[in-house]
Amino acid sequence: MKKEKEKVKIIPLGGVNEIGKNLTVIEYKEDIIVIDCGLKFPDEDMFGIDIVIPDVTYLIKNKDKVRGIFLTHGHEDHIGALPYVLKQLNVPIYGTKLTLGIVETKLKEHGLLSTTELIRVSPKDIIKLQSVSVEFIKTNHSIADSVAIAIHTPLGAILHTGDFKIDYTPIDGDVADLSRFADLGRKGVLLMLADSTNVERSGYTMSESTVGETFKNIFSTAKGRIIVATFASNIHRIQQIITAASKYNRKVAVSGRSMENIVGVATELGYLNFEKDILINIDAINKYPNDKLVIITTGSQGEPMSALTRMAASEHRKVNIIEGDMVIISATPIPGNEKLVSKVINQLFKKGADVIYEALADVHVSGHACQEELKLMHTLVKPKFFMPVHGEYRHLKQHFELALKLGTPEEKMLIMDIGDVVEVSRDAIKKNGTVPSGQVFVDGLGVGDVGNIVLRDRKHLSQDGILTVVITIEKETGNVIAGPDIISRGFVYVRESEELMEEAREVVKKSLKVCEEKHSTDWVTMKSTIKEGLRVFLYEKTKRRPMILPIIMEI
Amino acid sequence: MKKEKEKVKIIPLGGVNEIGKNLTVIEYKEDIIVIDCGLKFPDEDMFGIDIVIPDVTYLIKNKDKVRGIFLTHGHEDHIGALPYVLKQLNVPIYGTKLTLGIVETKLKEHGLLSTTELIRVSPKDIIKLQSVSVEFIKTNHSIADSVAIAIHTPLGAILHTGDFKIDYTPIDGDVADLSRFADLGRKGVLLMLADSTNVERSGYTMSESTVGETFKNIFSTAKGRIIVATFASNIHRIQQIITAASKYNRKVAVSGRSMENIVGVATELGYLNFEKDILINIDAINKYPNDKLVIITTGSQGEPMSALTRMAASEHRKVNIIEGDMVIISATPIPGNEKLVSKVINQLFKKGADVIYEALADVHVSGHACQEELKLMHTLVKPKFFMPVHGEYRHLKQHFELALKLGTPEEKMLIMDIGDVVEVSRDAIKKNGTVPSGQVFVDGLGVGDVGNIVLRDRKHLSQDGILTVVITIEKETGNVIAGPDIISRGFVYVRESEELMEEAREVVKKSLKVCEEKHSTDWVTMKSTIKEGLRVFLYEKTKRRPMILPIIMEI
Repeated sequence: MKKEKEKVKIIPLGGVNEIGKNLTVIEYKEDIIVIDCGLKFPDEDMFGIDIVIPDVTYLIKNKDKVRGIFLTHGHEDHIGALPYVLKQLNVPIYGTKLTLGIVETKLKEHGLLSTTELIRVSPKDIIKLQSVSVEFIKTNHSIADSVAIAIHTPLGAILHTGDFKIDYTPIDGDVADLSRFADLGRKGVLLMLADSTNVERSGYTMSESTVGETFKNIFSTAKGRIIVATFASNIHRIQQIITAASKYNRKVAVSGRSMENIVGVATELGYLNFEKDILINIDAINKYPNDKLVIITTGSQGEPMSALTRMAASEHRKVNIIEGDMVIISATPIPGNEKLVSKVINQLFKKGADVIYEALADVHVSGHACQEELKLMHTLVKPKFFMPVHGEYRHLKQHFELALKLGTPEEKMLIMDIGDVVEVSRDAIKKNGTVPSGQVFVDGLGVGDVGNIVLRDRKHLSQDGILTVVITIEKETGNVIAGPDIISRGFVYVRESEELMEEAREVVKKSLKVCEEKHSTDWVTMKSTIKEGLRVFLYEKTKRRPMILPIIMEI
Repeated sequence: MKKEKEKVKIIPLGGVNEIGKNLTVIEYKEDIIVIDCGLKFPDEDMFGIDIVIPDVTYLIKNKDKVRGIFLTHGHEDHIGALPYVLKQLNVPIYGTKLTLGIVETKLKEHGLLSTTELIRVSPKDIIKLQSVSVEFIKTNHSIADSVAIAIHTPLGAILHTGDFKIDYTPIDGDVADLSRFADLGRKGVLLMLADSTNVERSGYTMSESTVGETFKNIFSTAKGRIIVATFASNIHRIQQIITAASKYNRKVAVSGRSMENIVGVATELGYLNFEKDILINIDAINKYPNDKLVIITTGSQGEPMSALTRMAASEHRKVNIIEGDMVIISATPIPGNEKLVSKVINQLFKKGADVIYEALADVHVSGHACQEELKLMHTLVKPKFFMPVHGEYRHLKQHFELALKLGTPEEKMLIMDIGDVVEVSRDAIKKNGTVPSGQVFVDGLGVGDVGNIVLRDRKHLSQDGILTVVITIEKETGNVIAGPDIISRGFVYVRESEELMEEAREVVKKSLKVCEEKHSTDWVTMKSTIKEGLRVFLYEKTKRRPMILPIIMEI
């Protein structure tokens, strides 16, 4: 019997060929390591869906091998699926201090805190499991306390960079641990999985601290209130806002639930440093002059229910935008959010506020490595094998090309799709089969109960509405004794279309007559005849295709 | 009796506080001049709407005064509402050669060509009307044959720049007529209305000819087919693709209906210059080797039915993307289209094509003036009064600020909203009332029959679907003799939710019982009781709010 070659399996269940729902499975012998467990926000054509999470069937089937979920950082696309996955798979969660702080808030909301084992780790920590060990390595990102993860196997190390950038002047003083990456590279890394988000951008991502300079410039001349919207999780950005406020003797109030939560957690855990009395309650803002106030708020993406959006629409209970307010939107619109953000900017300007956004000043930097940083990481780590992660196909492909230019041979790289099982041995990398994978839709309390049929119906309804046709039939004779009644929603404005509806009723009557004459009075035939007759009639009259729902009642 | 001050009225019916549906009314004594008549593409929340056009009630009311619609260029957001407006308002259309060529194709499709008077003009032409005259002035834009329009009144000239940029090395050799703008400025311009689209961008927009250089570089090294997607109306871009193809001995085929139309019109009118045999039919591409072919196609915005999108999805009947194809997307995604474009790029890469897009090379330039060009225009024209047009509020506001920095006094400027009546006299500018204005939705054959109620219903349906509840009641006794039947669409996957539906039926029965006990058996009460009972039940069970449609049949 030939001895089977030793190998590590890599199975991405999310985060490749898509932005978000990051989840990578790394399997060696009896150990399964899960890196991150994120959600994705729905595309526009996923009508009514709240969030999208990965299909973790494979993990549930292999429950006994799963040693834990190892988190790289606390962004939603890396931790957001935890509450749903933990309900099916109760395993320990490993993460750094701030990451776990954010996870705790989330688990508390879902009533899962008491049943979940949270294990706090620090950069340089190594967790020993049965046949592998897991090491955490400091990186920089747009949230504090981010790490890369190295899994040491007898075949060599597997390095997952997580989301990262390299910031030589970070706010917390801790540069990504380049020395450790170099060390790993020297000793030999079997495989690297690396962030591809910004691979299309040349050069370097600017340091987070450059944004602080911009804030200080703006704060130094502002005459009224300053309102800054940013991502709640960007603790370093928030720190810089508070620092600038402090420098110019302004008090700071916080608005928006997620912002309040995070500022609370970060303060408690020591990630925000400020003199105690600088922070005031949002209810107290009227006690201070406008030029002594800064409000930090959610809503940098124009999200409909967020604090800034409500302020802009005069729907915020505590903050009214007034002439002379200076609003800074310290973020870039995520693709798909441009129009929402633009709407908020327009409303703020109309209310007389000054609005500063990325097009006008350097009030934001990315959290992801651009080309030169990626080249640095590849050069330090010198992995034998490489697979790009975290990006749509275009990003993965560009990252593949970048590695090729750096000298990585084509046959030592792979672009994965979710569900692919990639086997890495000492001398080869190859795909070998697939496991179940996909997107699970969360809608309200339902997890996975909305599928493609429901979505297709919602899309159809959204385009041309619905026409319900009801008739009541006498069971014994088959005679129509009431109806046809036609009720429409989302199709035409009913009061102006009475004639059309009257004609539609006649069309239905004609269809019923046809059925009668052909003695085709089974319900299926009747319904399809009604549908087809109406479909043709309505399309001819309106060039629209509403959903047609015939209902037959029998007495 | 005090003599009324002479004044010109400016009434924007579109194009301010929005991108698109440009239409400006200029009224002096007995003359109404309409500048442009454009459409707007629907926002994401305008479910099922095909296009949006301006409300022209004011023009129809003042029919006798309307001397014509004067077009600045042939883009949809400037001419696209013509077929709808002309049906209610048959007035002459003035435009340059290419603009009218495009308008003709459009009117032919709508059967309006024979009844519409089209008057071809050239830059420097002056049309004399009763009390004003209208002059056309050459500009540059991302379509050939664009003009600014000056309306000469006894009070002074009103200059509308149209969409413009200043291109010192344009493809057709004709730079915007800076000399005439300077001349007008010297003689005194009463009011300028100017394009604000790119006001947030510093510097200059690059010349169209720079894109030609990029094309030549790419074409010189391409080994397989080259497929270039761009806006059909960008004749100069198309010219440059053909020129590059010619230089490298490639034949050119055209794909996509609008591209075929425009190339036809532009060739006929002499706007495209090439050796006759370079253009081949798309059906003939298989007769040529791949490295001798260029395909020019629509789909640069990832529009679902466009040629490139169909090629990427393997749904194009004539062009299959193959390994080694080089696809150039020569356009920037319009805000809102980013994800569509990204999807196409991903699909093309997956098929093995090389894809070049704006993030990777200079394959596109804007058609609008950036800050330095706007400053040049303001400086040459030196208008007494200024109003920014063509942009959302943020753009209009920034353009206002730009003019302020150039020395225009605040009181000599106004930001308009659609429907505003702005009166300009020799020494003052002010708003004085409003006229009807707004967005008219075109959905299929319906123009204006879909209003806010229908849209609200479509949105509701798109989020959580619909539940129809039907009961049949005996007229005399009021007894329920059939039902309740519940049918849902777009709510839950029915086969997996039989239990929920069964419980819902019980909830309805309970509601009916309540009505009976209270003797509240009028239909309105019954329906609202059913609705409320189900609403509460379903929200508790699912945290969703489907539309609930109770139908009562009576026999």
